[in-house]
Parts: sequence; C-alpha cells; structure tokens
Amino acid sequence: MKLYETLADEIEASIRQGLLRPGEKLPSVRYTSSSRAVSASTVFQAYYLLESRGLVRGRERSGYFVTSAAGLAAPEPPQASAPTEHPISVDVSDMIFKLLEESRAPDAVGLASAFPSAFLYPLPRLAKAIAGTANWMGPKRVLEDLSPGNGRLRRQISLRYGADGMAISDQEILVTNGALEALNLCLSAVTQPGDSVIVESPTFYGALQALQARGLRAVQVATDPRTGVDLHALERAIRQHAPSACWLMTNFQNPLGSLMSPADKKALVALLARYELPLIEDDVYADLFFGANRPPPAKSFDNAGLVMHCSSFAKSLAPGFRIGWVAPGRFMSRVTRNKLAFNLNTSIPPQLAIASYMEHGAFDKHLRKLRLTLSTQQAVLADAVARHFPAGTRATRPQGGYLLWVELPPEFDALQLYQDAKPLGICVAPGTLFSPEGRFRNCLRLNYGHPFGKRGEAAMASLGQLLRQQRSAA
Amino acid sequence: MKLYETLADEIEASIRQGLLRPGEKLPSVRYTSSSRAVSASTVFQAYYLLESRGLVRGRERSGYFVTSAAGLAAPEPPQASAPTEHPISVDVSDMIFKLLEESRAPDAVGLASAFPSAFLYPLPRLAKAIAGTANWMGPKRVLEDLSPGNGRLRRQISLRYGADGMAISDQEILVTNGALEALNLCLSAVTQPGDSVIVESPTFYGALQALQARGLRAVQVATDPRTGVDLHALERAIRQHAPSACWLMTNFQNPLGSLMSPADKKALVALLARYELPLIEDDVYADLFFGANRPPPAKSFDNAGLVMHCSSFAKSLAPGFRIGWVAPGRFMSRVTRNKLAFNLNTSIPPQLAIASYMEHGAFDKHLRKLRLTLSTQQAVLADAVARHFPAGTRATRPQGGYLLWVELPPEFDALQLYQDAKPLGICVAPGTLFSPEGRFRNCLRLNYGHPFGKRGEAAMASLGQLLRQQRSAA
Repeated sequence: MKLYETLADEIEASIRQGLLRPGEKLPSVRYTSSSRAVSASTVFQAYYLLESRGLVRGRERSGYFVTSAAGLAAPEPPQASAPTEHPISVDVSDMIFKLLEESRAPDAVGLASAFPSAFLYPLPRLAKAIAGTANWMGPKRVLEDLSPGNGRLRRQISLRYGADGMAISDQEILVTNGALEALNLCLSAVTQPGDSVIVESPTFYGALQALQARGLRAVQVATDPRTGVDLHALERAIRQHAPSACWLMTNFQNPLGSLMSPADKKALVALLARYELPLIEDDVYADLFFGANRPPPAKSFDNAGLVMHCSSFAKSLAPGFRIGWVAPGRFMSRVTRNKLAFNLNTSIPPQLAIASYMEHGAFDKHLRKLRLTLSTQQAVLADAVARHFPAGTRATRPQGGYLLWVELPPEFDALQLYQDAKPLGICVAPGTLFSPEGRFRNCLRLNYGHPFGKRGEAAMASLGQLLRQQRSAA
Repeated sequence: MKLYETLADEIEASIRQGLLRPGEKLPSVRYTSSSRAVSASTVFQAYYLLESRGLVRGRERSGYFVTSAAGLAAPEPPQASAPTEHPISVDVSDMIFKLLEESRAPDAVGLASAFPSAFLYPLPRLAKAIAGTANWMGPKRVLEDLSPGNGRLRRQISLRYGADGMAISDQEILVTNGALEALNLCLSAVTQPGDSVIVESPTFYGALQALQARGLRAVQVATDPRTGVDLHALERAIRQHAPSACWLMTNFQNPLGSLMSPADKKALVALLARYELPLIEDDVYADLFFGANRPPPAKSFDNAGLVMHCSSFAKSLAPGFRIGWVAPGRFMSRVTRNKLAFNLNTSIPPQLAIASYMEHGAFDKHLRKLRLTLSTQQAVLADAVARHFPAGTRATRPQGGYLLWVELPPEFDALQLYQDAKPLGICVAPGTLFSPEGRFRNCLRLNYGHPFGKRGEAAMASLGQLLRQQRSAA
C-alpha cells in the first residue's frame, strides 16, 4: 500500500467514526503535510483518492470538504411510485396555501421551504446591476420591452442555451414573471377546462394548483426517484386517456429530485411527437447540477416544436426578481397572447439588471459556488436523516437541486409529524402535498438549501424523536 | 367695460380667429403689460377672466396656455350607446393583438396607443429610486415580500387612499404585476367558465380579452359618454341574465372617458349589494383628473366588501414597472390565492423603488404637471378633430385621462380609415375594437397623451383627407 493510500484510509476512518462530519473542512494540505511529515503531493494524492471515493469534494480556493456520511448507513432510495391510473379531479389548494403561509415564517433551517436560502444569492451585486441600468431605463424602452420582453435579456438567455449546445434564438423566448407564470401560460395555451394532463407522481404542487385553477384533471404516471417518469406507463396513459398535454420536470424533479437520462428524454420527445402531444417542461433546477455538465432538457431533442421549455432565474440567480421565461416552440404566438392578455408584460428594470449581470460574466462563477454549497449541504442533511430517522427510512440523493425526498416506513405518518413539529417551530413539507389523492402519507420533502449547523441538527433530532413517539403510540 | 375686460375680449377674439391656437402660450404678463401700456395687475385680471371662461389655463411657473378651441365649432359629445341586451360570446382577440403589435412601432403622434408618452414620466428619478434600494434588497426581503407584497409599498398605497378619504388598510391590498393582472385575478375569483359578466358599451378591450380567455359571456350595458353606465339598464341586465360580476370603469372609462357622478357610484354600489354582485372596478385613470379633486371610486361607497378595486402606477407614475394592486374586499383570500398559484409574487425591486419614490413626496408634484399637460393636449386634439374631421363628427371631452372617443357620422367607416391610414404611418384605434360584435364602426379612439406638434397636425389633416375620400367614393 502506498503512503497516500494509507493516509486516505486513515482519513476515511475518521469520517466513518464521525470524527470528521459532512460539511466540515479537511485540514489544509500544508498543515497535513507538516503534521504527518509527508510531502504535499502525497497529501494531494490522498485527498484526490478520497474525492474519487465520494467522501470529500474540493472547492476552488477553499480546500476539501467532507461530503458523504460514509460512516453511517446511507438511506436507500425509495421505490418508483405506483399511482392511480385514471384521471383525477384536483382539489388540493387549501393545504398548499396553508403550508406556503406557514413556511413564510423566518426559519434558519428552512426544511419545508420551496426556496434555498436567499443568502446564497448575489443580491447586493444584482441591486447594483439595477442601479447601473438607470441610464438605459429610458422612455423608449417601455414600448420596446413590451412582451416578449427585453432584447438584451432574451439574447443572454439564448446565448446560455447555445453554450449548452441548444439552438434557441432570442426570437423564440418570452420573458415572464417567474417560471410559474410561464407554466400557467403554457397550460392555458394547450388545454381547455375538463381536459386531462399527464403529471409525474408525486407531483410538484404548483402543477396541481394550476390544474385545479383551470378545471383540468391529473393523469399521474409512475415515476422513479432516480430516473424519472416511466415511459411505458406514460404511453399507456396517453392511449387510455387522450390527454391534452404533459407537464414534467425532466431535471431534478420537485419533490423527487429524479433526473431523466438523455436517452430517456430523447425517447420521451419521440413518443410525444408520435401522439402530437405538447410537453410543458418545467426546468427550473437544471443549473443546480452537481455533475460535470448541465443535464440537457427534453427541449434539446425536440424538432417538432412541441416542447414548451420553462425556466427562471429565481433559483439560480435572483430570488425575488421574478424573472422567468419560456421557449414555447410552435406555441409562441398563443403563449405570447396569453401573456399580453393576462398582464401585458414583465417588469422592465429587473430584466435589465439580470441582462447586465449576465453580460458581465459573473453568472457562472456564482453558479459554481452555489452548486458546491448545495451538494455539500445535501450530504449533511442525508447524514442527519440516516442518524435521526427510523431504520428502514429511504431517501433520495439527487444529483442536483436542493430537495430531498424521504420515505418513512409505511407505518409512519408524515402529516402527523408535520402537525406535531409545528409547535416546536419546525416545518416540514408532508408528502400528501404532492398528490391529488392524499398519497405519500409516509413521505416528506426536506430542503437542504439553507445553512444547517446546530439548529438543523437539533431540528432533525426533534423530528426523529417525534417519529419514535409515533411508533410507541401505535 | 373695465380695462381688463376689454383686454380679455381682445385676446379671446385672437383665440377665436385661430391667431392663438390651443397649446400655445400667451405672451408673458410683463410683455403684455409693456406692449399694451397697462398695469401688470390688469393683465393678470384679464388672464384670470380668460381662465374663468375656460379659454386658457395657468401652469405653475410656466405662464398661461390656450386650452380651448373656442373659435371653432367644438364637437358635440356622442349619444349614449344602445347595445344588444343579451349575453354575447366573446371572440375578439385577433384584431386586438394585431393592433397592439402595430401600435408598438415608434410613433411620435401615438394616436392609437393605449399609453401616454413615456416622456411624461419621471423615469430617471425612478431608476435612481431603484438604485437607492440596493441597501434594503436583502435576503430576508425575498420571504417578507411574497404576495400580498412589500409592506412599505402597501402602506403608501393605503396612505393615498386615506388622503382621498378612503379607509383601506395596507392589509387589504395585494400588489400585482400591473392592473390588468389584478383585474384578471379578480375575474377568476368570482366567475366560472360559461358565466355572464356585465360590461360597459363600448368596452375596454382588455376586459373582452379577459372574458374570452376565461370562456365568459359579455352582457353589455348602455353607457353615456359623459356620465357612464346607465343604472336602469344595469339593473335590467342583472335581473334578466343573473351575471356573476360587473366589470366597470367608473372614472374616465376607456374608451369613452365617461365619469360617473358620486351619487351614481353610490347608487351603483347599493344596487350591486342588493343582488350580492361583485364589482370589479378598473380605476387606472383616476389620478389623471383635470378637476379639483380625485373623483372617488365606487369602492369608497362600499360597506359590503363587494367592490374589488384595481389600479396601478403604470399610467400615473411608472410605465414599464408593471406595479399595480387590488383592494379586493371580501375576496382578498381568494384573489391572493389566485396570485400565488399564477405567478407567486410581484417583482420586488420595482415595488421598493415606487415605495421609496412615494415616501419622498415627489408623486403629487409629478401628477400636477402630468394633469396639466394632458388637459392642454386634450384641447389641442379636440381642436384638430373639429377642424379636420367631417361636419357632424362628435367627440367626447373627458374630465381626465388621455383618451378621446370620436363618433363620425354613420356613413363613415373607421375600420376602413384604420386600413387606409396604415400605409401613411398613422395608426388609429377603430371603434370595433371595443365591441364583441364589431359595433362602433363609425367610431375611433384617439390618444392625446403624446406631444402633438406639427406631426400630429399633419396626421390629423391626413385622416381628414382620407375621410373626405371615403365620402366621395360612396
């Protein structure tokens, strides 16, 4: 065994014994080199080896951090869902709105939140970008930037598609007041009240709200927590229920975090083209990938113009600015008209600010930092789930985003946990939020996009305690 | 006859002879005093007398301007409308969108535009206000300013209601992405597809689009160009068609410019309360009054919480910022939920900027200047209508806003005029835009919110010429 392997094994043992915990920094190369009396290159090799084992991750100019709860039994991922196959009328709003209201309370842990901590975003830098736009916020802009939106911003969005290998021109892009608006405008463009729409199971509750608001029925399709929607089940649902559209999250689905492979996305697009079925693709998390590259959206395989690709800067750059967009393919004219009729256009100053920020090239640097933070925090939260939650608990380990889906053994009740935790000032998102039928009662969604620390650890311990009480009461 | 009366009569004669034209400035008091060899106070008295005759208007620190085309036959106002009384399915969008698209072309005259010139607004000052908000655009704000919106802005809106004698607390106000969104959210809150909704005749085309998008039918009610909706016809329509809501513009209706009296608004609110019928009140022009005070909205007479009062800063302060609001009375919870489900919340930086601008008290000064400009420009355009359009042409003289409604003699075709004028680079809004049945074919809406000058005069002369050609072709 080489010297660096011995060193790596020793550090791995420290991690397994809990002496070094996820999120913590390894000693610097210089420090370890001197304390162990080995060369710096030996330390580097040891750290690289630990990185290849998935135990640590290097951060540019910051050192190496423990990522994996390797010393503990990492939770297994949950099984694929098996939803009701017939169309379901949707009536979910009350609970969702109640939860949204409750999750507004300032809460450092933010386990129930739908958003990462706003502290992760360059808000002061963006505010400066807005200030700098004073010169070009002239009277002519008010007409020029009517929907489909500011030209410079649409150009920047188009350039990013191009950098990821997709040819989407600025002329194909409509700026919206957040991705949720884009999704709703798309839904209105291709459905009539009473129609059926295919969704994943579990489903992003925003999709359920949108379906409910428009009087649409949900056709749920089995979804694997790792690989996303089941294409066979999808085709069966299309044949049986003649839906008007699909609404899917191909990258880091909310709540599962599932990621469809490029091959599956290609097959999905081909399948939908055979049935001339529009896909409303909600792709708001793609920039938060932990791997080497942005996973492609289904849109990148679309030649028929059927994919309506929706995204936003709300999760990647500028929460609170409400700047999203849609590349709606052949439905551009209809979607633009829906936008004009609903609220005419999107506020101009935030569009200018984001365009300016992107033109100055700081976006990628910010994203690299954000991704590293989120991937580290995922490891920390997964570790806490393994340590505090009952044996048999399963949890996803998404390759991007900031949401963990936790499946408790079937005898546990996450809705009860939600109720019991509230008085302790802890909020979780119960799985029932993500089902039009109140399923996933033993599941919950946890957010790792907030600083964890002692408060997070204490909150997870309290949740574990409440779950033990559930078992003893049963 | 006193000396100042003689002087005033002489100046009035100059105006009547067209030597002094609407929009032009009277000679300064000092100049007239010296040229006529009278005292300055005599000149002042003469100018005051002309002002009391409605022929000139004083502008703070700028002097006196001719307002009235007294020397010409001022057009008579049009008669009240007599619409079809049964509910109408709405299918108007194509033409509206086409016109919206065409009216985007930069056009100094802006006769067809729905907006006043953006040059009338303090955009640089607002951009500075946004810049100044950098300090308080912090991470916590993202959660705190979720819908119903930023607290400081809602407070400022509430204070303005208070200044106008209305008790509407900040808690009753939801910030929206423009008034159009507020109106759409209200409509969704109180109607189901297939329902009927009462509107004025002619109708703001945004209302027709909203009805169409939601599959609603329009019940049109006779509307007087001066005094607004006919309350007897309204009650008859309620009894006959059991509508779900009314959508009315009580102040300076688009396109008529009609203004309901306070007594009529009170009666309207009482009538709707008897039938438990919600009123969606579109009040975006109220701040652009030419009289002594802001005309009260119907909301100010509402004790039952049935009035959903919608307004915005788009026409009064900040075009392009897309900041509107709604005070939806008893429907606050439903409207807020619609907002959350549709696009979550309104962009935060523009909210902060407007709040800051209002806190510093510059709003009223800006509005005074804006109102004077618009009232002067109305006189200029009305004068051009009288000089260039065929005998028998009628036109409104609204007491606020920036829209003139012109009724040509019945043998003229404004849709044809619209077609004929396009190649000349002149755009007008044909009356058919404001009817779900293509009525008002001999009417058009003209915007006086843009600098008129030689280009405006030439455009109006061309329109008059095209109308003469219509007559000779017939």
